[in-house]
Amino acid sequence: MIKEKKNKPSKELPLGFVDRQEKELLVRDFIISNIKEIMIKYGFQYLETPSFEYSDSIGKFLPDKDRPDEGVFSFKDENKWLSLRYDLTAPLARYVAKNYLEIPKPFKRYQLGTVWRNEKPGPGRFREFLQFDADFVGTKSFQADAELCVMISEILEKCGLSKSEYIIKISSRKITEELFKNINIKDKKQKLATLRALDKIDRLGWESVKKLLGEGRKDKSGDFTKGANLTLNNIELIEKALKKKTPETEDLIETIKILKDYNFNNFEFDPSIIRGLEYYTGIIFEVNLKFDVKNNKGQVIQFGSIGGGGRYDNLVNNFGNYDAPATGVSIGLDRLVYALIQKKEFKIKQSKPTIICVFDKNSMKEYIKLQSLLREAGVSTEIYPGESKLKKQMEYANKIEAPAVILYGENEIKSGKPTLRDLISGKEKSIEIKELVNEIKKIISGNN
Amino acid sequence: MIKEKKNKPSKELPLGFVDRQEKELLVRDFIISNIKEIMIKYGFQYLETPSFEYSDSIGKFLPDKDRPDEGVFSFKDENKWLSLRYDLTAPLARYVAKNYLEIPKPFKRYQLGTVWRNEKPGPGRFREFLQFDADFVGTKSFQADAELCVMISEILEKCGLSKSEYIIKISSRKITEELFKNINIKDKKQKLATLRALDKIDRLGWESVKKLLGEGRKDKSGDFTKGANLTLNNIELIEKALKKKTPETEDLIETIKILKDYNFNNFEFDPSIIRGLEYYTGIIFEVNLKFDVKNNKGQVIQFGSIGGGGRYDNLVNNFGNYDAPATGVSIGLDRLVYALIQKKEFKIKQSKPTIICVFDKNSMKEYIKLQSLLREAGVSTEIYPGESKLKKQMEYANKIEAPAVILYGENEIKSGKPTLRDLISGKEKSIEIKELVNEIKKIISGNN
Repeated sequence: MIKEKKNKPSKELPLGFVDRQEKELLVRDFIISNIKEIMIKYGFQYLETPSFEYSDSIGKFLPDKDRPDEGVFSFKDENKWLSLRYDLTAPLARYVAKNYLEIPKPFKRYQLGTVWRNEKPGPGRFREFLQFDADFVGTKSFQADAELCVMISEILEKCGLSKSEYIIKISSRKITEELFKNINIKDKKQKLATLRALDKIDRLGWESVKKLLGEGRKDKSGDFTKGANLTLNNIELIEKALKKKTPETEDLIETIKILKDYNFNNFEFDPSIIRGLEYYTGIIFEVNLKFDVKNNKGQVIQFGSIGGGGRYDNLVNNFGNYDAPATGVSIGLDRLVYALIQKKEFKIKQSKPTIICVFDKNSMKEYIKLQSLLREAGVSTEIYPGESKLKKQMEYANKIEAPAVILYGENEIKSGKPTLRDLISGKEKSIEIKELVNEIKKIISGNN
Repeated sequence: MIKEKKNKPSKELPLGFVDRQEKELLVRDFIISNIKEIMIKYGFQYLETPSFEYSDSIGKFLPDKDRPDEGVFSFKDENKWLSLRYDLTAPLARYVAKNYLEIPKPFKRYQLGTVWRNEKPGPGRFREFLQFDADFVGTKSFQADAELCVMISEILEKCGLSKSEYIIKISSRKITEELFKNINIKDKKQKLATLRALDKIDRLGWESVKKLLGEGRKDKSGDFTKGANLTLNNIELIEKALKKKTPETEDLIETIKILKDYNFNNFEFDPSIIRGLEYYTGIIFEVNLKFDVKNNKGQVIQFGSIGGGGRYDNLVNNFGNYDAPATGVSIGLDRLVYALIQKKEFKIKQSKPTIICVFDKNSMKEYIKLQSLLREAGVSTEIYPGESKLKKQMEYANKIEAPAVILYGENEIKSGKPTLRDLISGKEKSIEIKELVNEIKKIISGNN
């Protein structure tokens, strides 16, 4: 394997993978530090499972378990298959089963981690993304379901979103389950096809979804998707049920009551929320952003949800007989970063170093002294990291958006007065060494 | 694929992978936040490349490129092979080649990321670990090499290590290169075998390494490792050269001079430092801890280095003709966490929530009020996340090491005075709601 005859290796990335730059990473760090603070406040334990699991441990719950090898990245390892996790919920179920005797019951944990999907890459479709999950395992209390919604809201608001910029849409898997009973769908495959079709209401609208519930649908490109083969009558019953405005199932009534006890009103009941995954058993919810998000062509797009979750009371039972009813939430952090960066009011501070120019290698000791002085005062600083002419050094300083450069040549060293050039205003002045820290801080804060 | 007949999936993890608990993760976060702070101070850009690269992009520099499929996890993707990165240096070289026209020159970036090795798992051998890398690309200045050593030291000291607890061992690949020229080793395979043997001096000692330089060596288990087949005479020449006490190559003399300009003395010249990787071309160094580290059986082990690095002036050139001489450092963060946790003086704060016990579901609104009050004051709090008897709730509180529980039953609600039980002292008292925050903070800080 790994034999492709070529003289030079590829400089490109495989489709579906990207390099991430500082600005994006700083926004992500900001979100993550907010999450961690709120996780402590809410009493969730911090846990990390590895990237790999035995394929059979997570295979039972693959998003598309009818075609498992298309959903995940898998390797044959001696006798068993390993897979990269495709979410953080299946590994949690494995962890709970493995450590059932040791963990507190109920068990509350959060995890931040990369997940991988071996899907056909397309524009805007990534095969690796960072997720945040928080789950309660071992409780049937609706207080847990409600708290997840309140908690996610607190995270979003801490990240700078106002109540008008997001909404939590809430429903229950019990609605569709009841529906399936009423219209007598028992076949698991047909159920799944129905759920998958309904999951597209948001994106395709009811007219297209009704085709997917029936014989199938041809999309713009001419590709045909097979339908769930329901009768017209049943499709109408489903549409009627999923357009109701008032919740009727006990779990929704109870959970909504608790949300109100929290004085939390930024949610709406929406029975058209489906959540594709098969394993939900009760309350389900989705977190939607309500401000405009643009694609890389500058067009406003229907951004959809940044995450969601719900109750899955039987997942851990796949590993044996465990009493582990559970509820949880997942947020796609890359999507949240993408949206947050587009908000006008949102600013993130990127620190850039002040550059000490190099005139003479033999003066290195003097440059280092200045550098240490500035760094110790908390000023990001670097000696120009090379041996070039001053012009190149200035080009470098501009390229990295340095706020200032320090010119400390032979004469300046003799007089003990470096020249500080403000790269924002273009002005320069000769100053005492002891004034440097203050002057640079002024430049950085824009008070010069 | 992924067909293994079994009723229940495995609860176990594949060998070489582990679940990580809160304490370890908090120590890791502490290290990472120190790293980020110092990276800003030193003017390194924050960058993240993806987990996957085309295999041929990183395959040229595989640690053991004579057996590539054993070193990495690879997948066939349509027509090309993809691999999980095995370090952060090869992806950096790919990134520099891909973005050569856009990046600042020189280019300084740091990255934190998981790397994977598809090695035969054994006790204490992991197949996934977190690395921190910082590199200068596009500079031959020894100031860059020196600065990496100073920078790593600053990170370690910020993490709580004293100067007596670590040392940077420094050498140069030029020493072995000169040696190979003198004793006329030209064959690449023989060179690599020689370097690999020398890389084991620290672990096996000179006597065993001399066998590996000659015909080979049988280890304790009886396994035989083929040697580099050097003559006795050449082996002696190598030993003599690598036991010298004074650096003679220009790069070492210059770099050490700069280290002294930094007033940095916590290094030693040690020509027996080799660094296994083939691609180094100049200064090489290793970061070693000097305090006792124990294995999970409580035995003091020879812990070895937590990282190192060096100059690699030709790596980016594999992708074409780029002017990109470079130098960098890698630190194995899991290893550093493992060692740091064992230091007596090292403490990390784990916040545990105060538990509000649930007596009656109908009082949920009152519990939520208390919870909001405490959380808003920054006190980690949770309503017991279930519906159990008080005894179970107390067991839970003890299990998660809650500092306190709040008993807020019918009578307490009527009187407006919850009972606060200190789980550290075992004492309980009835107090006003407005006193709760202060009383809990006292318990947590140990002033009760």
